[in-house]
Parts: sequence; structure tokens; C-alpha cells
Amino acid sequence: MQKIVSIGEVMMRLSPPGKQRFRQATRFDILYSGSEANVTAALAGWGLHAIHVTRFPDNPLGYAALASLRERGMDTRYIQMEGDRLGLYFVENGAMTRPTSICYDRLPSAFSTAGSGIFPWEEILDGATWFHWSGITPALSQGAADLLMEALELCGKKKITVSADINFRSGLWRYGKTPGEVMAPMVAMSQVVVAAENDTAGIFGIRAKPGEEPYASIATQMKEKFPAITALITSVRQSITASHNRLSGLLWNGQSVLQSRTHELDPIIERIGSGDAFLAGYVYASLQQWPDQRKIEFATAAAAYKHSLEGDILYASPQEIEELAAGNGGGQIKR
Amino acid sequence: MQKIVSIGEVMMRLSPPGKQRFRQATRFDILYSGSEANVTAALAGWGLHAIHVTRFPDNPLGYAALASLRERGMDTRYIQMEGDRLGLYFVENGAMTRPTSICYDRLPSAFSTAGSGIFPWEEILDGATWFHWSGITPALSQGAADLLMEALELCGKKKITVSADINFRSGLWRYGKTPGEVMAPMVAMSQVVVAAENDTAGIFGIRAKPGEEPYASIATQMKEKFPAITALITSVRQSITASHNRLSGLLWNGQSVLQSRTHELDPIIERIGSGDAFLAGYVYASLQQWPDQRKIEFATAAAAYKHSLEGDILYASPQEIEELAAGNGGGQIKR
Amino acid sequence: MQKIVSIGEVMMRLSPPGKQRFRQATRFDILYSGSEANVTAALAGWGLHAIHVTRFPDNPLGYAALASLRERGMDTRYIQMEGDRLGLYFVENGAMTRPTSICYDRLPSAFSTAGSGIFPWEEILDGATWFHWSGITPALSQGAADLLMEALELCGKKKITVSADINFRSGLWRYGKTPGEVMAPMVAMSQVVVAAENDTAGIFGIRAKPGEEPYASIATQMKEKFPAITALITSVRQSITASHNRLSGLLWNGQSVLQSRTHELDPIIERIGSGDAFLAGYVYASLQQWPDQRKIEFATAAAAYKHSLEGDILYASPQEIEELAAGNGGGQIKR
Amino acid sequence: MQKIVSIGEVMMRLSPPGKQRFRQATRFDILYSGSEANVTAALAGWGLHAIHVTRFPDNPLGYAALASLRERGMDTRYIQMEGDRLGLYFVENGAMTRPTSICYDRLPSAFSTAGSGIFPWEEILDGATWFHWSGITPALSQGAADLLMEALELCGKKKITVSADINFRSGLWRYGKTPGEVMAPMVAMSQVVVAAENDTAGIFGIRAKPGEEPYASIATQMKEKFPAITALITSVRQSITASHNRLSGLLWNGQSVLQSRTHELDPIIERIGSGDAFLAGYVYASLQQWPDQRKIEFATAAAAYKHSLEGDILYASPQEIEELAAGNGGGQIKR
Amino acid sequence: MQKIVSIGEVMMRLSPPGKQRFRQATRFDILYSGSEANVTAALAGWGLHAIHVTRFPDNPLGYAALASLRERGMDTRYIQMEGDRLGLYFVENGAMTRPTSICYDRLPSAFSTAGSGIFPWEEILDGATWFHWSGITPALSQGAADLLMEALELCGKKKITVSADINFRSGLWRYGKTPGEVMAPMVAMSQVVVAAENDTAGIFGIRAKPGEEPYASIATQMKEKFPAITALITSVRQSITASHNRLSGLLWNGQSVLQSRTHELDPIIERIGSGDAFLAGYVYASLQQWPDQRKIEFATAAAAYKHSLEGDILYASPQEIEELAAGNGGGQIKR
Amino acid sequence: MQKIVSIGEVMMRLSPPGKQRFRQATRFDILYSGSEANVTAALAGWGLHAIHVTRFPDNPLGYAALASLRERGMDTRYIQMEGDRLGLYFVENGAMTRPTSICYDRLPSAFSTAGSGIFPWEEILDGATWFHWSGITPALSQGAADLLMEALELCGKKKITVSADINFRSGLWRYGKTPGEVMAPMVAMSQVVVAAENDTAGIFGIRAKPGEEPYASIATQMKEKFPAITALITSVRQSITASHNRLSGLLWNGQSVLQSRTHELDPIIERIGSGDAFLAGYVYASLQQWPDQRKIEFATAAAAYKHSLEGDILYASPQEIEELAAGNGGGQIKR
Repeated sequence: MQKIVSIGEVMMRLSPPGKQRFRQATRFDILYSGSEANVTAALAGWGLHAIHVTRFPDNPLGYAALASLRERGMDTRYIQMEGDRLGLYFVENGAMTRPTSICYDRLPSAFSTAGSGIFPWEEILDGATWFHWSGITPALSQGAADLLMEALELCGKKKITVSADINFRSGLWRYGKTPGEVMAPMVAMSQVVVAAENDTAGIFGIRAKPGEEPYASIATQMKEKFPAITALITSVRQSITASHNRLSGLLWNGQSVLQSRTHELDPIIERIGSGDAFLAGYVYASLQQWPDQRKIEFATAAAAYKHSLEGDILYASPQEIEELAAGNGGGQIKR
Repeated sequence: MQKIVSIGEVMMRLSPPGKQRFRQATRFDILYSGSEANVTAALAGWGLHAIHVTRFPDNPLGYAALASLRERGMDTRYIQMEGDRLGLYFVENGAMTRPTSICYDRLPSAFSTAGSGIFPWEEILDGATWFHWSGITPALSQGAADLLMEALELCGKKKITVSADINFRSGLWRYGKTPGEVMAPMVAMSQVVVAAENDTAGIFGIRAKPGEEPYASIATQMKEKFPAITALITSVRQSITASHNRLSGLLWNGQSVLQSRTHELDPIIERIGSGDAFLAGYVYASLQQWPDQRKIEFATAAAAYKHSLEGDILYASPQEIEELAAGNGGGQIKR
Repeated sequence: MQKIVSIGEVMMRLSPPGKQRFRQATRFDILYSGSEANVTAALAGWGLHAIHVTRFPDNPLGYAALASLRERGMDTRYIQMEGDRLGLYFVENGAMTRPTSICYDRLPSAFSTAGSGIFPWEEILDGATWFHWSGITPALSQGAADLLMEALELCGKKKITVSADINFRSGLWRYGKTPGEVMAPMVAMSQVVVAAENDTAGIFGIRAKPGEEPYASIATQMKEKFPAITALITSVRQSITASHNRLSGLLWNGQSVLQSRTHELDPIIERIGSGDAFLAGYVYASLQQWPDQRKIEFATAAAAYKHSLEGDILYASPQEIEELAAGNGGGQIKR
Repeated sequence: MQKIVSIGEVMMRLSPPGKQRFRQATRFDILYSGSEANVTAALAGWGLHAIHVTRFPDNPLGYAALASLRERGMDTRYIQMEGDRLGLYFVENGAMTRPTSICYDRLPSAFSTAGSGIFPWEEILDGATWFHWSGITPALSQGAADLLMEALELCGKKKITVSADINFRSGLWRYGKTPGEVMAPMVAMSQVVVAAENDTAGIFGIRAKPGEEPYASIATQMKEKFPAITALITSVRQSITASHNRLSGLLWNGQSVLQSRTHELDPIIERIGSGDAFLAGYVYASLQQWPDQRKIEFATAAAAYKHSLEGDILYASPQEIEELAAGNGGGQIKR
Repeated sequence: MQKIVSIGEVMMRLSPPGKQRFRQATRFDILYSGSEANVTAALAGWGLHAIHVTRFPDNPLGYAALASLRERGMDTRYIQMEGDRLGLYFVENGAMTRPTSICYDRLPSAFSTAGSGIFPWEEILDGATWFHWSGITPALSQGAADLLMEALELCGKKKITVSADINFRSGLWRYGKTPGEVMAPMVAMSQVVVAAENDTAGIFGIRAKPGEEPYASIATQMKEKFPAITALITSVRQSITASHNRLSGLLWNGQSVLQSRTHELDPIIERIGSGDAFLAGYVYASLQQWPDQRKIEFATAAAAYKHSLEGDILYASPQEIEELAAGNGGGQIKR
Repeated sequence: MQKIVSIGEVMMRLSPPGKQRFRQATRFDILYSGSEANVTAALAGWGLHAIHVTRFPDNPLGYAALASLRERGMDTRYIQMEGDRLGLYFVENGAMTRPTSICYDRLPSAFSTAGSGIFPWEEILDGATWFHWSGITPALSQGAADLLMEALELCGKKKITVSADINFRSGLWRYGKTPGEVMAPMVAMSQVVVAAENDTAGIFGIRAKPGEEPYASIATQMKEKFPAITALITSVRQSITASHNRLSGLLWNGQSVLQSRTHELDPIIERIGSGDAFLAGYVYASLQQWPDQRKIEFATAAAAYKHSLEGDILYASPQEIEELAAGNGGGQIKR
């Protein structure tokens, strides 16, 4: 059983039932979710030894969050129960032409007020095959950035494969540093990078050059800047409406850009978490040492599958995803 | 803050949850709604001083209805708590090819048993910019018709703009008068009229003349009969299924017929209340003194937006509607 | 009022609410359903005297199941309250490209442990016009097969029309006999048979011959083997996704194959029970002695209508189905 | 199987979930209930052939009400589907010291607008053992009173035992007659009468005479006025709070007053329907020809049991009630 | 209509349904509540012109909170939509011997980051009869304390009666000042003060002197320190279990201590908000100029009534409370 | 962290919401529970390394059950995913004088069809401090009994403390052996035994001798027959009603019988699982090496606390239980 480690904030998600707006709600459905932990949750469900590292407050909500990660099969032994509050986010599910709306209430969460030196990284990373982080962590606070850097450096020493989900959100960076200065050394230590043009442009100013195949153009520039990168991947979404999207995946593998089949998603149940599912699929396929085309097909199908599920978490077996990757999305009843 | 006044019945709406038929229901979701009050509710949500005039029984259900209007930001100070019962209607939401079904239980409601002389119209209409009524009110009872006439006459004196939603429903007219004889003097006192051909034909026998552009033909005949009319508007719906419609809007502005963009509505969450949203949008755009094309685009987008919401009420900001009016219905997540 | 009799197991169905997977559920919505009883329930709702014969355990769950059949208007007087347990099945509703998944927990249910000699068939079938069975019953156990055979023989003596829903599910046959040997004499006593190629192939090895119109080819071979057959019918489903299907119906009436219009089903609420609705529609149309084309249109529209409903049961009036059969699926609001 | 017949209105009951007030509710739990039908429902559940006679509107709500009675095992074949609307009542469940509150919305219901000559009483009452009515029916309208009188006269001819639940509610009598004049001839044709002093006083001016045992005093006077009476019964409730009552039963059997044990009811789940359960218990015990003391114990235990159930209907087996009648209310788990 | 003004934070309350612990919850019921606004809500429900002053963030949750106050009939025109986040608190309802547990997530809420100079107090307080504040406001932040002081000084000038709910919670005071130094000048400007010994002891070190009637002893000392006080009131709770309490009220009116009747509360639905109901009752009774004994009876009955309701808000008419004050808590059904 | 191991069946529990009877339910709340696993779940929640050994079917319901145990913090690594079906039980919660009713649907569950030789007991028990079993396991099947015996023998070799919950249910023993013959050698290998007189009498014929203190009498006889026993414990319940019980605990420690305080339980939320909580409390107290009186107080308080919770699982911290053990059950709000 391969060991994979992730780090990142896990928050309580609160959402009005069904298609209600916030104004109409008299109750919120709740779950506990975070981009990086969602990746790890999917991998735990597929049989990997998946460790997530984070902090929760030492209150009933923190323990509820902790139990929720355990339920998904994650190894939660390194999670610390300290800090003031659990981060929250409120999700209003869109429908038809009405967009999904997310309202964050994140700071000063227990994770964002953590700092370096508090987790036993030597023990946590011992024997690990893969480490995953996202651009949300360094965006939260200097402490969170330090904490992450500490882990990345040890990954480098231990030759652990590192995946980075750039996930650029300009609204998050509020502690006085620019995304570029903080993230450059981190990306430099990562081999698998998830990024679309708005990520690379927003953080590193890297845009597709006119006349070049756009994703290859970006990838080449990223590779130049960050030679450790072996794979640059992204999902490509066409939003017809909030209920109807088309999704495909791109993988630049150092040589060329491979493209997955396009999935017609209609009607979407929920799209939140599909980026995490995409990455989980890619990590799984990589650990299986599948060919590159199969990797990007599996990753994209995992992301597509997520759209059929309520909540942020990908509950699906590799078999279910492979069937979809093979184009069997006709929805025959399974008895 | 401009002041707008509406009059009309507000009922309790009861509907089986989700897509259940009445036979399957063990509970009903409830809300309080009425065509004219829905218009005013939307306008209150957009910052206008919106007064609704009606009657509720002096029992706990009447007070619940009253609180519900207040929640939407309406000024309820002139609502009277008298009369026997609250009108009800039961809504079974359709799906796919199954139509939505509505079962009214309306008479003898507190509003329909009201009569003239009971509301302080002089005070209510003082300083008002706009007055709104619909064809449901005169259809209910002689008393309700008298009550409305009293208000309309004062509007005339005070030069308040009047909008009329013709809303012809033959099943309602049961007290011995014909819609034509009752409504003609009322429409004669209205400037903005919402009517499709089935309304003008059903009440005034006005149909599009062969060879003429249909809506222009109707509008010209209406103008002839009711010279006060400055705008005749309607939304045009193409029902592919109960879940999939196409919607556009028409505005005859005295010179020509302007048409809005067509909105693809799929899958519809609920369409009830979209006509009220259409009118609210038109009133708002008029009060903003926008150009005619923008008026009809905004009104139609408001109606389209309503289809993405549960319940009868349009909960949406002008910005959200304008985005849709501008064609941005792709449903990107808003963070 | 014509009398129709059916036999078959009725189980408790448990399903996560909305679109949840089993893993996510903290509650299950329940109802009581069985293929044959669903046919009879629809017929009872359309005014026939519909008797269903089965067994339930003498415990609170058995009585709840019994009450549920009564609610649908069925005559339950011959149902026996004996045996160990109520059969169960768990349904996870699919969405988009995710298939619906069914998990059976059936044996040793009260019905499957029944045997011949326990029901007063002479009385039950006295004056009956129609008898309905499906291939599920003989698949369950030798006792259930015996029980059915007993009834079929009496139907033969009494000249009661018999309909058979072949419903071949290889997973069910576990008591040591082959479907072919058990079902051949039963089908031989049936006049109306519901079967698609996978049914006739799976049980009798009958496949469409190359070069022949497929359904006519199957039907001719079935007729040869089972001369009593007067009608072979089936619905034909094209699954674009779990949420979007196309459905039409085929009727071989001894001379030729008639085809119904094709219904576009999007978005499907639930498809389980649509085969039962199809058959109920055919039985009803036959009892009305409608022309063959109208029969297959009505049957197919009944099946199509079912897709707009939650649960397994067709709650729809003949008028609602006829409207759909006539192509009016545009979903206008009914007031 | 003995045949029992009842007549009376059945309404839709709507109640906020849990302990919410009307003002707080966003949904109502619904069920279908009526005093007399509740009696019959309990008897149907205990194996009697129980016919209820009423009218429902020919709309989806009427059919839902009809199905609900069938679910309880009642014979609904004589129910007519005619008239304008289904009567409604809204129930706000009390708690602690807050009383339960009921808001009726009854007229002009389908039943109250019925009249004599519309039911085939000869057939309905043929072979019946018992007929049950309550004071609600003659209170509703002249037509309802006529309808009832018609049935009572035939009961007299056929020597069917008649039970009357006086159920005096002054608020109901609005059609211009006094309860006394209308009900006297009806009570005169009844043998088993449920009445407390407020009933006999309110309608016939009969009060306990000072110095006499109160219930014996009332009973003697009633017997004098209505010689047909063989049993006068009532339950006696002491309300400590809305959640804590004490309940016992009284039976005057022509000679003396027998009293049941007192049941401590704490905490009450719902008390509505307990009077109907009381009467159902008495009828059942009478049909079993049990001794008088056992009759009143069973009736009172049935009423007590009802307080442990949600809704208006007594779902309990005779065995469960007998255990409670025997004083076994300790609530040991039943496996 | 008398005008009453209150100031204070309003938060979103989230609670697991029924009796679940936080760990068990998959959804939270929500409402919007704050101690001072709860007082004003009750008064608005009783017909007063009740203004509440606070701040909400300019996001959908803030507007939902605002609408919720409007629903209760409060005048919300002075509420500002500014600041970062809405304060939250999580409530786990206790049962039997398990205590209710509250988890606050309050800072840095929009209200707590407000400061003086932002509300038009001259206009707000113009014509007001009463002003209400509680010890929570000055505990939150220096800004909130300044804001309150500003209002209190104007109340002094305008001779508006001021009520203060001391509400000492040591956990709240985190900005570096002691409760005593901040609150002394505020209490000095208040006439009606709600305080129990733990409040006066915790803030001002005032304890009952041995040998003196305890509440009189405290009151006398308070009067000495704060001569403006005309009434010191408190409710006295005896907690047998979380589900069973006894409640009475004390009023020191300058001369002596009056005591209300004791209410037996069993089983309690929810006790949160009962202190606010107590004060609302006292304010209402004072405005009615009732005798002192009636004041404390009404206040205590209001607090008692609240225990029968879900949520924090007192939904009850003065009549309902007076009945309870009169000792009628027997819970007879109201029809 | 001490290691504790338990074995036993875990089933899906299905129960109507609130206080509904089975007949009234349209949905069932579900959870996964088993007597022995409930003990271990509580211990896991208190920080022990708690391993549960069982079998689940390799289907979605089995995996949902598995995730549920993980959520509670249990080590599930030895659970096997094999066998036909998941055992079920249906629980109807009692209220007032109506008893809770449980309907089992247990065989042939995956656990009951297991046998010896399939679990790596050497590894599982390595380093374990405590092993727990109950009388349900040997009652299910010969295979389950063999499986258990295999573990017990290894416990003996490894000197692991063994606790046995006798839990005699005569209805369970159906495979042809008597409880006495099967369980005697098992009890002989146990040190801590939970048994009341009905257990010892039902299985070993051991009853209190007249004239002796009953529990001491039973304990002495048990000790004679099973010399390994060091503690015999039981809880003693007095059922006033289904909603009101009194509970105390008895501990015979080899010398004398110690009795805990008596807890007044009113109103009970749910009592199922309280026996498991009792034992969990005793194991925890034993591992803490507390004095005997504190052990039985803690165990009894744990059982009492459970009555305040929905579901079968004890969610409570040791601190919360100790407070209750200390008599603080007054239910003050915790902020």
C-alpha cells in the first residue's frame, strides 16, 4: 500500500438544501472539505495509505471535522487539535443559468494560524511516495507558507514526488507578499503541476505565445522556469450553463500535449470538488504507472464523475471511473 | 427612494416537496405569494419603497402571511387583518413532460370579501410614483373590483403611472359580470399593460389581424381602444417540455415592437412567478429611465432568472439580472 | 368493473434521498414495490378491480407493505401474512452519466418460501378477465414456480387472458433449474408476452435472424414455439445518459410490427417501474379494445410518463397518458 | 367479520413539524382525518369490515384523502367524489404549558354541501352491526343533518346499534338552528352516547344535580330524556400541562357508573384523536361482548395509547391496548 | 405606538436538528438572533415601534439576517451593511441530564468592528420612549463600547428610559479593559437593570450581605452605587435537569422585593432566549404602566412561555402570556 | 495508548423518524451498530486504540458500514469484506407508555456465516490489553461460536483481560445447541462478566437464593462455577414508563456488592445502546485503575448519559460522564 501525504486546510461547508438561495434557507446541509484533503480522500477510497496534515480547533466542530476525514478512510493521526476556530464556507448551488456562489469565512482559522516546526515531518514523510499541496496554503498566511516550505524541503531530500495544484485565487493573498515570490520556490520543488493559463499568468505572468499551441506554449515556459516539472495538467471546462458543461483534460508530458475525450455534463448535480477529483485521478493513474493517455483519460473521467455527485468528495470506484473514461456514460441500471 | 404601490390577494401556497405528485405527499412546503405582491417584493428587494395593500384574516395564518411580506422588505402598514380565511393554492411541480398542476382554494378569502371604502387611499398613494394591479383582482368579486376602481381613480387624479397585468383566467370570473365590462374602464386608466393575444382576445376580442405583424397588430388595436396605453409588453414562451422552455420578451412602445434576446431555460427549477418577475423588471427599468431595448432585455432576463429559483419570488439583484440580460448565463462559480 | 389478478413478490425499497450515493446516506426513503404489483396498482388507479396475490411476514413491516398496496386501491384480501421476512432492495438513483444502482436483499422472503396449495385460486380467479405474471416469480424458488403454475393452469381452464413479462435476470435463478425448462410451459399458456431480444435469447435462445426485421424475426420464432401468443411487445430504450433517454414501443400483433412515437425523456426523475407502466398501459388499452396502434402508443406513453415521477408507481390518469401519447409533452401549467 | 358503518367529514390536517408555531413553519406535515373516520379506521385495523361514508371533491386532494382512508383498511366504496373543496384544519402542537391550537378552514367543504338522497343507505347498512355518528355532522349544515337523519332512521328500522359522540362545539353551529332542536331526535335514536357534562349542558341543558354523584346524575337525566340510551360514556382528563395529563374513563351502564384505572400521560406526543380512540375501544369491546368493566378499561387504554402516537389515528393492536389496560405501561423494549 | 430602540449584535445561530450532538449532525437548522434584538423582536410582535441598531456584512448572509429581523416586525432602517463577517454561534440542544452546549464564533464580526460616529443617533432616538442595551456590547470591543456610550449619553439628554441587561460573561472581555471600569458609567445611566448576584459580583463585586434578604441586599448596594436605578430585576432558575426547570422572577422596585409565581417547566423545548423574553415582558408591562406585581408576573410568564418554543424568539401574544401569568398552564386545546 | 479488541456483528439499523410507528414511516433514519462495536466505539472516542473484528458483505452497504466504524475512530483494518448480506434491524422508538419495538432481519448475515480460521488473531491480539465479546456472537451460528472460541483461547494464552456481556436472548439460539453448553467454556475464560439474574438464570440456571442479598447470591454462584471471574456487573433499570426510567449499577468485586447512585432518566431520548455504554464505562474505568466505587459510578453514568442521545452510540467525553457521575445532571448551559 503506497503512502501519500497531503497538507491543507479543511473547512466546514454549509449549503442551503436543493437549489435554494441563502435568503430562502432555514437550514444548511453541512460537510467538511478542503481542496487537498479531497484529493487524499479519493485516494484513500481507492486503497492507498493517505495521510492528511492539518489543524482543527479543540472544540466539538473540530472533532466533527476530524471524524469526517476518518470516515473517508484517511489517516488522521498527525492532525493537531489546536487553534481558535474552524474555517467555514457557504455554498449556494447554482442552477440553469444561475451561477453557484461561494462565500468564505476563513480567517483566522486554526490551520492558517499554524506555523513551521509543529508537525513531525520526518516521521510523516517516512516511506511516502507522493506529496500533494495547493496554492491555497501559501496564500493563507506566512505561517502556513512556512509550514508548507518545511515539508517541501524534506520531500526534496527524500525524493518524494510532489504535486502542486496552483489554484490561483487573488482574493486570498492578504498578508503582504505576492503569490509569485512565495510560490516560485515551491513550484520549483514540484514535479506534477496543475495549472491553466489564468494560474500561470496570474502568478508568474506566463501566457500562451501567439501562434503557438496555447497549452504547449505555457508548458514550455513553465518548464524553462521550473525544470523539475515533468507533467503540466489541467482540465478544460466549457460552461454552456450552470447545469450543462463540457469537460476535457490536457496533459503536457514534457514532449507533447495529450488531450482526453470530452465529457458532456448535463444536468450537473454539483461541480465543486471536480478539480480535486481530476488531480486524484491523475495521481492514482501515475502510481499505477499507466500510459500517459490513460492517465489523462482517467483523471478527466474522475473529474467528470464528480459532477454527478452531491458534495465535494468523489465517491467512486476506479472501475466506475474507468467505465466512464471508456465512454460508457449511458447510465444503464446496475443490478 | 421611489414609492410604488400594489394591490392584490396574497395566498398560502402549498406544494409537495421535490417532484412528488399530490398523492405521494406527506408534507407540503409552504410560502405566501400573490401575483401583484410578487412584483412588489422584487421591487422592494431592489431598494424601492414598495407598499402592498391587501387583507388577511386575523388568525395565525394571516399573521404568518403578513410576516412573510415584511421579510421581503415590503411596507405592510396598510394591510388589514380582517375577514374569514386565507386563500390557498396547491402546486404540484411538473418535470420532464409532466406539466405543473395548480389547484386553487381561493374563495371566500379575506381579500375577496373586501370592498371599497376601507383603505385610506389618499394617504397610501400620496407621493407614489407607480401603481400596479392585475386582472385577478376584478375577477374575484364585485367588492374587489370596486376597491380597485377606487384606487385607480385616485391614481388618475394624482398622475401616478399605472401598470396592469391583464392575466385573463376565465375560470375566475364567477360573480355575474363579464371581464370585458369590468376591466375596460380599468385598462383605460393604465399606461403600461402586460398582455398576450390570449388576454386581449379573451377579454376584449382583440386578435392579431392577418397579414400584420401579430404583436404590433394587437398593440395598435389596444391603443385605439385605450389611448392611455404607452407600452404593451409580454413574454413569449416556447415550451419544449415542462423542464425546458425558451423565453423572450416583446415591447410595443407606441411606435414599434422591440424583442429581447431568447433565453434557453433548461432545466427549469420552477417557472411560477416568472410573469411577475417580468413585470417587476419592466417597472424597475422604467423607473431607471433606461432605453426601451434595455427595458425589455432587463424584464425578460428577470423572468428568465426566476426559472432558476424555487418558489414564486424573484430573489436576485439587479446586477445578477443585468449579467443574464447581457448573455452571461454560463454559470461560472462566483467566489 | 373488470377483474384483473396478478401474482408476485412485493418488497420494501430503500433509497438515499435525492442523488446521494449509499455511502453518503443518513436516511433512506422507503416504499413498497414489486414488478407485477406495480402493474396492478396502475390498473387499480384506472378503475379496474385489481387483485394482487402475494405473501408478507406477519410483522409490522409486512403490515406496512400491505397497507401500502391498499392505499393504491388494490384488493388485498388474498394476501397471506406468513413467512420469515420481507424482501428488500436498495436503490441508488443515478444522475447525469452515473448509472442507477440496485442492491437486492431478497431471499428467503415470505413470498419466495411459499408453495402451491395455499391460495384459493378457484375463488380468486372467478370472473377474472386478465391474469398477469412475470419471470421473476419462477426464478425465485421451486415453490414460487409451483404456485404460479397452479394459477396458470386454472387460467387456461377459465379462458382468462394471461400476460407474461419475461423479465430475464440471470442472477436470480439459483435453485438448480434453468429458466428455459421452467418458463417454457408457462409462456405456452400466455397470450400477451413482453420480451426484448435479450429475454428471448437468454431463456429460449431465440435471436433475430440476419436480414429479417429484428423484432418481427423474434416474434415469428416465439409464435412458432408458443402458438398461444397473440401479442409480443417491448419498449425500446436508447440511453444517452442516466438522465436522458429516448423511448419507443414495439407491438407485434401476429401480422406485423407496429411502432409508437419516440419520447424524448430529459431530465428523467426516475426510470424504475417504467416497464411495469408499459405493461399496465398495454393491458388497459387491450381491455378498452382500442386499435393496436393506439394500444402501443398508450403503453409507451404510460412508460414515458413514469419517468417524470419519483418512486416505482405510475400515478397518472388515462387522460394524462393519452395527452402524452398524442404528443402533448410541452408541460404547460394546468390550473 | 362484523360490519360497522360511520358517516362524517374527513379533512386535510396541516401541522408545523415538531413544536413549531404557525409563524415559524416553512412546511406542514399533512394527513387526512375526521372524528368519525378515525373511529372506523381503528376498527378496520382491528379486523372489522369498516365502511365510512363521506364526500370528497373530485380533485387530486380528494383522491389523496380517499387513498389515505383505504390505506387504513377502510371500505371506501360508497364515498362520493363531488363538491367544491376539501375541508382543512391547521394544528399547532402544544408543548409544556403552551396549549395545542387548531385553526379550522372547513366550509364550504364537499361533505357539508351534501344533502339527503345521495347515498344508497339501504345497501350500505345491509347487514351492519353498528352505526356511528358525531355531533359535528348535524352542526355543519342542514344538508348534512338531513343526510344523517336519513341514515339514523334506517338504522332504527334495521335494529342496528347506534353510537353518538355528542362532541358539542358551539362555534360550529352557524346555519340558524340550535343544537338542541336538531340533535334531540338523533340522540333519541342512539344507544351508546359519548358525552361529558359540557356536552349535555351545552345542548340539552342537563347538568349534574347538587348532592348527586355527578356522572350518574347526568346519565339518569339523559336516560329519562332519551330512553333508548343503554350506555353513557366519557373520558375524564386532568390537564397538568399540555405535555402531562391524567386520563380515566367513566361508563354508566344503566345501573351504575364504572370507572377505569387512571393513566398517567407524560410526556404526551399528541392528544388529538384520543376521544376517537376512546370510542373505537368501546365499540370494539362491545362487539367482543366483554364485561362492562373490561369495556371501559379497554376504551380508556385505547385513548391513553393514542397519546403516544403522532397524528390523529390510533395505530395499535388490541393486544397492545390490553397490555396497557392491564397496567403494563412500563415501556420495556419489545424484540 | 411607542418607540423603543435597542442596540446589539445579531448572529447566525446554527444547531443540529432535534437532540443530535454536533458530531452526529449532517445539517444545521439556522436562525438569526441576538440578545438585545430578541427583546425588541418580542416588543415589535406586541405592536410597538421597535428599532434595532446593528451592523451586518454586505454579503448574502448579512442580508438574510436583515430580512429575518424584518420578518419579526422590527424597524431595520438604521442597520448598516458593512464589515467583514457575520458572527456565528453553534447550539447543541441538551436533553434530560445532558446540558445545552454553545460554541461561539463571534469575532471579528461586523458589529464588533464598528465604532462611534457611524449611526445617526439624534434621528434614531428622536421621540423614543425606551432604550435597551446589554453587557455583551461593551464586552466585544472598544469600538462597540464607544458606540454604546454615545447612544447612552444622548438617552440621558433626552430623558429616555434605559434598560440594561448586565449579562456578565467573563469569557467575552478580551480587549484589555475590565468589565467594571467600562460598564460602571453605562449602568449609571440606566434605570431598569437586569442582574443576578453573579452579575453584580462579577462586575462590581457586589454580593448579598449575610443576614440580609439576598436580593434586597444586592439591590440596595446597587442603588447606592448607581442612584439612577429604579428597578432591579432577575429571573431565578432551579435546574432539576436540562429538561425540567423551575422559574420565578424577582423585582426590587426601590422599596421591596416582589416575587412572581413559580413556573414548573417540564419538558423544556428550548430555554435559550428566555432571559430576553423576561426583559421584553418587563418592558412591555412597564410601558403599560401596570402595577409592579403584575409587571414581574408578566415578565416571568413571558420567560416561562419561551421554554415551550423552538428557537430564541418569543412568539406569543400578550394574551397568551397573561393566561400563563394567571396560572393557566394546563394546556387545553384551543380551537 | 492501550489496545482493546472486540468481535461481533454490526448491522444496519433503520428507524422511523421521531416517534412514528413503522406503519406511518415514509423514510427510515439509518446508522450502523452492534453491541460489541458500540463498546469499542465509545472506547475509541476516549482515546484508546480500539480494534473491532467483524465481516461485512463486499457491497456498497458493507462499505458504508465500514466507513461508519472508521468515523467513530475505530481501527477497522481486520474487518473482512465477504459474505452475502448485511444484517438489519428495524427500531420503532417508544414514547410515554408505548414500548420501543425492534424487528430483527439478521440471518444469513456476512458475520453469522463466518467461521474459525479466517482472522489473523495472533496479529490482532498482539499487545492487546482487553478483549470484549457478548453472548450474541455464539448465539448466531456454530461458525460464529467457533470464531469466538478461537480468539478466547488465544486471549487466555496471552493473559489478556476478557469481558463478556452475557446478553441472553432466547430467540437467537436456533442452530441446535443450548446457550449453556456453548457459553460455559467461554464464560470460564472471562474475568469481567456483565449479567443480571435473567441472564444467569436463562443460561446457567443460576438464581438468587432466598434470604441472600440477591446480586451477591448470584455472583457467588457464578464465581463458584467460573472461578476466573473477578467482577460481575449489571445495571438495574426501573421502568416507570418508556420515557421515564431510573438506573443504577451493581458491581460485585469478589468481596461485596457496590451500588452506584440512581439516575433519574426523564424524558429519555433513546435507551438502546445504554448497556453497551455501561460496559464501555466499566472497561475505561478499569483501564484507569480507578477504585471500584468510582468504576461502577462511571459505568452507570455512562449508561445514563446514553439515554440523552439519539442513536445507539455514546458520544460523550469522560469529563461529561464524570460530571454526571458526580451528580451534576442539572443541565446548566455550557458556553
